[in-house]
Amino acid sequence: MSKHASRLVAGVDVGGTNIEVGLVDADHTVVDRAKAHTPTDGPDAVLDTIADLVGSLDDRPVAVGVGIPGVVHRGDVLTVPNLANWTSTVEIGAELGDRLDLPIALGNDANVGLLGEHLAGAARGVDDVLGVWMGTGIGGALVLGGHLYGGTRGAAGEIGHVVVQERGALCGCGRRGCVEAYAGRRQMEVTATALQAAGRETRLFAIRDEVGKPSVTSKVWKKALDENDPVAVELFATALDALGVALGSTLNVLDVGLVVIGGGLAEKLGQDLADRVATATAPWVLQSDPDRRFVVSELGDDAGIVGAASLARDGLD
Amino acid sequence: MSKHASRLVAGVDVGGTNIEVGLVDADHTVVDRAKAHTPTDGPDAVLDTIADLVGSLDDRPVAVGVGIPGVVHRGDVLTVPNLANWTSTVEIGAELGDRLDLPIALGNDANVGLLGEHLAGAARGVDDVLGVWMGTGIGGALVLGGHLYGGTRGAAGEIGHVVVQERGALCGCGRRGCVEAYAGRRQMEVTATALQAAGRETRLFAIRDEVGKPSVTSKVWKKALDENDPVAVELFATALDALGVALGSTLNVLDVGLVVIGGGLAEKLGQDLADRVATATAPWVLQSDPDRRFVVSELGDDAGIVGAASLARDGLD
Repeated sequence: MSKHASRLVAGVDVGGTNIEVGLVDADHTVVDRAKAHTPTDGPDAVLDTIADLVGSLDDRPVAVGVGIPGVVHRGDVLTVPNLANWTSTVEIGAELGDRLDLPIALGNDANVGLLGEHLAGAARGVDDVLGVWMGTGIGGALVLGGHLYGGTRGAAGEIGHVVVQERGALCGCGRRGCVEAYAGRRQMEVTATALQAAGRETRLFAIRDEVGKPSVTSKVWKKALDENDPVAVELFATALDALGVALGSTLNVLDVGLVVIGGGLAEKLGQDLADRVATATAPWVLQSDPDRRFVVSELGDDAGIVGAASLARDGLD
Repeated sequence: MSKHASRLVAGVDVGGTNIEVGLVDADHTVVDRAKAHTPTDGPDAVLDTIADLVGSLDDRPVAVGVGIPGVVHRGDVLTVPNLANWTSTVEIGAELGDRLDLPIALGNDANVGLLGEHLAGAARGVDDVLGVWMGTGIGGALVLGGHLYGGTRGAAGEIGHVVVQERGALCGCGRRGCVEAYAGRRQMEVTATALQAAGRETRLFAIRDEVGKPSVTSKVWKKALDENDPVAVELFATALDALGVALGSTLNVLDVGLVVIGGGLAEKLGQDLADRVATATAPWVLQSDPDRRFVVSELGDDAGIVGAASLARDGLD
């Protein structure tokens, strides 16, 4: 056991909307936490915010792990496509290390989320796991043979860009037919807007305004589905249909025994979402496995914090 | 090093058409070989043929590894869908062990093929590899983190059943839109037959008869493509198109640095096929990797023999 095993580490989950920081003990328990909106004016402000949040925790950690929405390979951040005004390449590890005078470990946000679930959540003790994060986009991550699998360049797990329909709907990535073009919240909102403009009646945008959100969030989807809003029901069915095809294709290649569904939509809809994804996937699976399980994330937002913290702890050993 | 390291083992590749057996040394060199048609009257005849072929080799091996076209999990064969009259569950290991009085190791044929390439062929020294076998169907296998990855139940690698078009062409598996429905030789022949029946002119079937084959084999495709037969050219373009989508989806999930293209079509068309597959895949890859390579199998038919033999040798350690 490491000499640092009893010391606390910090885990940071950098999202498009919020930055969440937690102080995590050796049992993967979050013992203190802090949160702020993600600055939209570029990398410096993001790094300052992370440093402030870590500094505000009850205790000083011995190391910091950060989950980044980008491609991370061997500690280097290769691309950060989803943060505002993040255009230049930034040495996040070195710059944050300078600010905090602590060792910094970096990982991809989807990967550290699944790592958290693997260490302390829904995927505990399972060797082969696919994580699917349903939010603004569709993210993913893999644990294979008991270890996080990042691929040759750290870019593995992009299940959102599994194609379900060649020459299908336009995706945010510029390609066509990716599952994210049907099941990612951003694209679902674009489609809902177009349907409303074409004369279809929907309460999605009224609900958005009622709950005071700037966009059609997971909470808005939940309310619209509970009301049986016809456009919401139709788009959600299309999303599940596409997700079933993408997961079927992926399971035919990977044959994992557990699929963990996380992200905002999973938090709002719970195990019912995982059950519906399982039902949508079944017709596309070549070798059906009665023992395969589809479950929702247990740790929710904490999964990324716990996983990122564990990267920091591993770096100390 | 094992005490058996200097002894010879046998590798057996059971295909739908032929059974090939090789005597393999510790350097993965095939030092003797034998071959017979695959019997079509069920498991007993197949096991007898394997035993006869092993018995006919120059030297008696210390163990036998067998690559089977079916799902193999921890030494048990779960299903064998592609061998004629193989309806019952057969304890292949025990039955063959009785016939030969030797230890028997079993593996899936696509997996042992990639294992052979990983040990002694095109994938030597590469940690993350996708193997794609283009023949009657589209098979596949994975080496991840330096090891063969079989999945939770041994069914991983079925890239032929990655869906490229929801509600697309009918596949031999009974589903629609699998890449095998566009790029597998069996389905391509079905489509060519339908096109000819609908009045399209093609020399595919005349070439088949000229070379004396019972079906449109890889050799027939090669000749038809060399002649610029319009139906052959069109169906081959459609196959590559579908394969590009399926491999793009798979690489987005797996981010492997090497794709090995094998099988009958790769043997006939060579590196040109791998280059064309690379070109067809590029538009679908989210994170392009300039170092990613697409190469054809180096060992050809020997890949399965070498991989199966290595399973036998591993079983001795």
